[in-house]
Amino acid sequence: MPRLVMKFGGTSVANLDRIRRVAKRVGVEVAKGYEVIVVVSAMSGKTNELVGWVNETSPLFDAREYDAVVSSGENVTAGLLALILQENGVDARSWQGWQVPVKTSSAHSTARILDIPTANFDAKFAEGMKVAVVAGFQGVSAEGRITTLGRGGSDTTAVAFAAAHQAERCDIYTDVDGVYTTDPRITSKARKLDRIAFEEMLELASLGAKVLQTRSVELAMRYKVRLRVLSSFEDMGDDAGTLVCAEEDIMESNVVAGVAFVRDEAKMTLISVADRPGVSAAIFGPLAEAGVNVDMIVQNIAEDGRTDMTFSLPVDQVARAEKAVREAMAREEINFHDLIADTDVSKVSVVGIGMRSHAGVAARMFGALSAEGINIKVITTSEIKISVLIDRKYMELAVQALHDVFGLEKA
Amino acid sequence: MPRLVMKFGGTSVANLDRIRRVAKRVGVEVAKGYEVIVVVSAMSGKTNELVGWVNETSPLFDAREYDAVVSSGENVTAGLLALILQENGVDARSWQGWQVPVKTSSAHSTARILDIPTANFDAKFAEGMKVAVVAGFQGVSAEGRITTLGRGGSDTTAVAFAAAHQAERCDIYTDVDGVYTTDPRITSKARKLDRIAFEEMLELASLGAKVLQTRSVELAMRYKVRLRVLSSFEDMGDDAGTLVCAEEDIMESNVVAGVAFVRDEAKMTLISVADRPGVSAAIFGPLAEAGVNVDMIVQNIAEDGRTDMTFSLPVDQVARAEKAVREAMAREEINFHDLIADTDVSKVSVVGIGMRSHAGVAARMFGALSAEGINIKVITTSEIKISVLIDRKYMELAVQALHDVFGLEKA
Repeated sequence: MPRLVMKFGGTSVANLDRIRRVAKRVGVEVAKGYEVIVVVSAMSGKTNELVGWVNETSPLFDAREYDAVVSSGENVTAGLLALILQENGVDARSWQGWQVPVKTSSAHSTARILDIPTANFDAKFAEGMKVAVVAGFQGVSAEGRITTLGRGGSDTTAVAFAAAHQAERCDIYTDVDGVYTTDPRITSKARKLDRIAFEEMLELASLGAKVLQTRSVELAMRYKVRLRVLSSFEDMGDDAGTLVCAEEDIMESNVVAGVAFVRDEAKMTLISVADRPGVSAAIFGPLAEAGVNVDMIVQNIAEDGRTDMTFSLPVDQVARAEKAVREAMAREEINFHDLIADTDVSKVSVVGIGMRSHAGVAARMFGALSAEGINIKVITTSEIKISVLIDRKYMELAVQALHDVFGLEKA
Repeated sequence: MPRLVMKFGGTSVANLDRIRRVAKRVGVEVAKGYEVIVVVSAMSGKTNELVGWVNETSPLFDAREYDAVVSSGENVTAGLLALILQENGVDARSWQGWQVPVKTSSAHSTARILDIPTANFDAKFAEGMKVAVVAGFQGVSAEGRITTLGRGGSDTTAVAFAAAHQAERCDIYTDVDGVYTTDPRITSKARKLDRIAFEEMLELASLGAKVLQTRSVELAMRYKVRLRVLSSFEDMGDDAGTLVCAEEDIMESNVVAGVAFVRDEAKMTLISVADRPGVSAAIFGPLAEAGVNVDMIVQNIAEDGRTDMTFSLPVDQVARAEKAVREAMAREEINFHDLIADTDVSKVSVVGIGMRSHAGVAARMFGALSAEGINIKVITTSEIKISVLIDRKYMELAVQALHDVFGLEKA
C-alpha cells in the first residue's frame, strides 16, 4: 500500500480538542488506503517551558541533558494521538526516536539524521498497523543517547521519513494554507500558489520560513520528496495547500513565482579600501567569527588600487560588525578611508525558475522600481533570483509594483 | 567505592529550587566517597496532568500508550537534576529506563522489574561518573516498549537498583521524617522509630503507606536492602529518619513497635448460613470478582450445620459487596438467615516482632481496651500482629490507650 507522511506542528496539537481534529484528518487518509506515518511536535508552549527550565539550571548546559529534557514534549503528543486514533478504531501506535530508530549524529541539539531503517515499520504495517505516530525533532546517537535536531526539526523528521519510506507525499500541516506569491499583508492581490519548485521555495525562504524550514526543503529536494504545505484549520482536499515539488512536475509556470522581502536590513560600506589579494578574507573571516550573518556582498571595480566593499546584514548586528571590521583592519594593517552603515534599508527579491529561460526579467524589475521613483542601492542576482536593497520606506510600494508588473495575481 | 541509592519523590523535586536542594544533598554523599544512584519522580502534579489527558482520550486506553505518555515526567526531572549537579561540579548524567536498561515484564502500567544489568553503570562509574540520575517508575519490555511500574513505582525502582548494585543503603527522601509508633495526629506521645524490621514495616503498611509502598518494602526484605526513610526538608545526618532493616540489625526492640489503624472500615455478617464444603469459596470468590477488598474473615463454630460468617471491608465497597453476596447465594442456592452490615467500625492493630517471644500481648491489649469500656467486635492475629474491629467513635481512644499500655513513647 502507498505510504503517506503527515506532519503536525505545535499549534495543530495544542490541546486534546485539536489532537482529536488531527486524528480525524489522519483517519481520512487511512480510509483512502494509505499506510500513514504521522510526525508530531510538542503541544505548543511545552517545549518553551522545558527549554526555560534548562536555561535556568545552567548557562552552559550539557547539550545531552538538554536533549533528554526537551524531547519529552513530543513523546506526550505522540502517545495521546495514538490513543485517540485507537479510540476512533484506527490501529495506531506511538514511536519515540530511539524505538524507530532515528539514527543521528552525536551533535546534540543540532543533530543530523544519518539513517532511518524501515524494517520495524514494515513489519508492523504488515501486521495491520495503519498509523505510526512518530515523536518529531528527536533521534538517538550511536552512543544510545537522545538527540534533538534543532530548529525546524519536526519538518526535517517528516521529510526524512518520507524519503526513507518512499512515501507518495509528505504533507506539512501548519497554520497557514500554503505558500503565497508574496505576503498577503503587503498586497491583497497576493495569491496562493498551487505548486512551487524546490529551488524557488529555497529562495523564498524569507517568505517560507513561517511555513517550512530551509533544511527540510533541501532534504526534500535531494530525495525528491513531494512536500505539501496546508492548513490544519481548514478543509482538506487533494488540491488544498501548495505542493513543493521538482521542476518537471510543474507544467507551466509564471516567469516569476513570487516576491520576497526582508524588512530590517542594514548596508555597510568600507570606502576606499586597499585592494590586494586576501583583503576579502581579512574582512569576512572576522565577520563570520563574530557571528554576523552577511547576506549580499558587492565589490566595485578597483581604481588606483583601491575599492569600495559593500555588504548587507541584519540591522541588529551592525554594532558587532563594525567592531569586528575595525579590529580586523587594524590587525591586518589594511588602510581604508571610512566605514559607513545605512540601517534604513530593506531587501526585495523576485524569484522564479522561469528566469532561466526568459531574458529581460531584471530590466522589467528595475523599470518598475524606477517608474515608482525607487532608487536601487545594491543588486545581486542568482540563476533564479534578483535581489535589490532599497530604502525601507519604499518596501511595500516596491513589493506591490513588482507583484503587478509580473502579473502574479493571475495563475 | 561503595554505592548509595537516594530516591526523591514528587514534592522533593516540585520546582527548580527544590531540585537544587536535592543536588546539594546528593553532593554531600558524593563528598563522603559514595558512587551515587539517584532515582527521581516527576515534578509533583506533572504525572497527574499526563494521566488526566490520557483518561480524557479514552476510557479504555491502551496501557502501552499510557506508559509512553506518563513516563515522560520522570525524564524531565532526571535531566534537570543532572544539569544542576554538573553546574555544581559533580560528574552526573541522566538515564531513562530503556538506557539502563531496566528490563521489565510486559504488564504495562503494572510492570514488574525482571533485571537491571549493572554493566553500563559500572563502566561509567569507572570512567569517573559520580552520580547516575535515574528516571524512576519506568522500564522497557522485551518488545522494546516503555513500561511503568504502577503506584509507588519510584520507590520500587530505587530498591531494585540498590539490590542490583549491592548498595550500602537505599535512602528514600520524602515529606515526613520517618516512621512513627503511631500517627502523631492521634497522640502527641507518638515517637519516631530509629529502626524497624521489614516485617513490622509491612504490617504497619496502613501507617507506612504515606512513606513507603508495600511493594518496595517486600523487595527490600527479599534482597536485604537497608532502607532509610527520611525527610528531604530537614537536616540530614547519619541518624536521621528511620532505618528499615532485617531483624538481626535491631539490637533490642519493644515488644510492640507501633499501633496502626484504619478509620473507615465496615463489617458484614452473613447470619446462619448453611455450613457445607465450598461455602467459603461460594462467598469470597464472587466478592473478589466484584473487586471487594476483603480484609479480616471470621467464621464462628458451626452449630446444627449452620454458621455465622463475618468479614471486614472498606466502607465504600459495602453496596457492591452486598449485591455480590446476595447474587452468589441465590445462584448457588445457599440458604442463609440474614446479611447485615455495620459501617461504623475501625480497625486498630498492634505490631511487633517482639510478640513472637513474648506471651500475653493479646491479654494486655484486650485488657487496655476493656479498661476504657471499648467492646471488641472481631479479632484476627498473625505472628507479629493483633488486629481488632471496634466502634469508630472509640478509635482515637483505643490508639492512645494501646500506645500507653505498651510504653511506646519510650525508646
